[in-house]
Amino acid sequence: MSDSAVLSLAKDLISRESVTPEDAGCQQMMIEKLEALGFECETMVFEDTTNLWARRGTAKPVFCFAGHTDVVPTGPLEEWHTPPFEPTVIDGYLHGRGAADMKGSIAAFMVAVEQFVLQHQDHNGSIALLITSDEEGPFINGTTRVIDTLEARNEKIDYCIVGEPSSTREVGDIVKNGRRGSLTGDLTINGVQGHVAYPHLVDNPIHKAAPALAELSQKIWDKGNEFFPPTSFQISNIHAGTGASNIVPGALQAQFNFRYSTECTADELVARTHNILDAQGLDYKLDWTYNGVPFITGEGSLIEAVKEAVREIAKFETELSTSGGTSDGRFIAPTGAQLVELGPINATIHKVNECVKVADLEKLVDMYRITMEKLLTNG
Amino acid sequence: MSDSAVLSLAKDLISRESVTPEDAGCQQMMIEKLEALGFECETMVFEDTTNLWARRGTAKPVFCFAGHTDVVPTGPLEEWHTPPFEPTVIDGYLHGRGAADMKGSIAAFMVAVEQFVLQHQDHNGSIALLITSDEEGPFINGTTRVIDTLEARNEKIDYCIVGEPSSTREVGDIVKNGRRGSLTGDLTINGVQGHVAYPHLVDNPIHKAAPALAELSQKIWDKGNEFFPPTSFQISNIHAGTGASNIVPGALQAQFNFRYSTECTADELVARTHNILDAQGLDYKLDWTYNGVPFITGEGSLIEAVKEAVREIAKFETELSTSGGTSDGRFIAPTGAQLVELGPINATIHKVNECVKVADLEKLVDMYRITMEKLLTNG
Repeated sequence: MSDSAVLSLAKDLISRESVTPEDAGCQQMMIEKLEALGFECETMVFEDTTNLWARRGTAKPVFCFAGHTDVVPTGPLEEWHTPPFEPTVIDGYLHGRGAADMKGSIAAFMVAVEQFVLQHQDHNGSIALLITSDEEGPFINGTTRVIDTLEARNEKIDYCIVGEPSSTREVGDIVKNGRRGSLTGDLTINGVQGHVAYPHLVDNPIHKAAPALAELSQKIWDKGNEFFPPTSFQISNIHAGTGASNIVPGALQAQFNFRYSTECTADELVARTHNILDAQGLDYKLDWTYNGVPFITGEGSLIEAVKEAVREIAKFETELSTSGGTSDGRFIAPTGAQLVELGPINATIHKVNECVKVADLEKLVDMYRITMEKLLTNG
Repeated sequence: MSDSAVLSLAKDLISRESVTPEDAGCQQMMIEKLEALGFECETMVFEDTTNLWARRGTAKPVFCFAGHTDVVPTGPLEEWHTPPFEPTVIDGYLHGRGAADMKGSIAAFMVAVEQFVLQHQDHNGSIALLITSDEEGPFINGTTRVIDTLEARNEKIDYCIVGEPSSTREVGDIVKNGRRGSLTGDLTINGVQGHVAYPHLVDNPIHKAAPALAELSQKIWDKGNEFFPPTSFQISNIHAGTGASNIVPGALQAQFNFRYSTECTADELVARTHNILDAQGLDYKLDWTYNGVPFITGEGSLIEAVKEAVREIAKFETELSTSGGTSDGRFIAPTGAQLVELGPINATIHKVNECVKVADLEKLVDMYRITMEKLLTNG
């Protein structure tokens, strides 16, 4: 029996060794297929990153699939049961790096588009794909720069499905309809170094830091809301000391991260953190990294269409969630797009022996196609 | 002009490259001189360490000089103005590793003994020297094991001068008559590692540690007394984190040190620390290192004799102090000996270009000799 369209395409993508920021020809292969379907394809190279903006039609609304052709490194090769860039089906599961995150989703969407376009040559609105080769890396030259380019020419996405592996036990059981914001602080607290035997000559930065870090870690920043859990604060790293037991160090370094709801803004969290440190009278330096603002897609046409697609194919109700880490959705949602993440089961992503159930890819084809039918046809 | 006796002997000692635990023949040279003066000399080798117990006479009281022939490493040779093991006098200062800590003191005591014995062949009591080659190192096979040997045969020291460089601006300005205790704790606080995006699945050991460390660092352990400043607590090292900003670590390590007065015991400090950690409900492991108990020599024959010796030679009143780090006095004082530390100015010890004023060595000879005259003669 020959491979189905989605399996064949997923294998083709996995066989290309596209570790971030490499695309390894994935997008060129996609372009050839998309142009045959009537898409206009625009390759945007920024530094080491290859991006694709493909669009079929010029009308509104614009329905977009967002994804990435890059994959994370393999990890220890000797722990893989099959070579990570030689796609292999075992017991109904397709094995290979990127199978679940997210070459399987890309293949499913490509096949869904082909089926949809063949049936609906004159669909409403436009179909688009926003594909990058740097989602797993520093994400500086990927989706964010494509969005900047589109915004500059006032080209808007109305509906967006990001193909990230959102599912947990069955494909479609979880659809992400938002993400928390992420904000990182790098803190240095200064003191005066010296010998422990002369405590009057030292100013111990660990002692000075402890009450402030205790207060920050116990603080309730907000209570969350119907979409988001409460904003969380976690110190991830703390270091001070020369290694010698009899020396008080001169400075302490700590790094912390906020995952925040739409009840806070990053600027509020920054201000409140400084207030706590200032109230302790600390001599400190604090550098902030803004990783992404929170976003949410409430009830509306996109959610309704995706819920119906999951219901038809999986025969259960999907659950909306805003949990988990960040995704490129954070760069697209702020333009005003309705945005969800729907993709395969995420149990093996970033691990050795990454795999996806072939039958789940077939279901994803149907879910993506039905979503388009709901949004881009009158039927 | 030829070198004085003390300068000649100090040079001889410095020229021997006796970095811990090496003695490099220092003690053998001393033995030859001491035997000529009527001392019985006993070399005690424990592992890599060479120790000398020399005693003249069998009567009580036993007056002992305690010191060490080992020196700390040179540090960067290119920063020395003279080769560290080639003793050199420049502008009245003898330069070389060990000049101040403490080959100068040993030379001064050797000359003082010679002068004293020639004048007082039949002095009261006994004169002793307890010399080790491991004071600057792990101090496991040095003074502490000699004391164990003496205690086992019930041989007691009544008065002890340790030749550590106690002076700050003028030789004899400070005499140490005690030292604080030192107690080190190595603490591990356990949590549960995980991704910052899933705060309900982690148990952040940094968050758990912060209130406990704040409480420990703010605690008043005692108020000190007439001899000692208040007990001090200093955290010297703290480490937690994987380096990644989005991972909560599974454990935190901290190391702290108490310098404690005679108002506390080590066991009390241990118990009080555990009480604070237990009250916070922490999952922790705490290993203790007992570096030395506090000791004090109050007014008495030794203090009186030393004060008078300084007064005669330096024409000022010495100041008694218990400040600073530890010394081998901590091993001798608990046997019941009256014990003080009196030696040269400590400004250059353990540094490059260590040096001592030659005139100060001459003064030390007189101070040591006068102290013996006060304690071991009837005049």
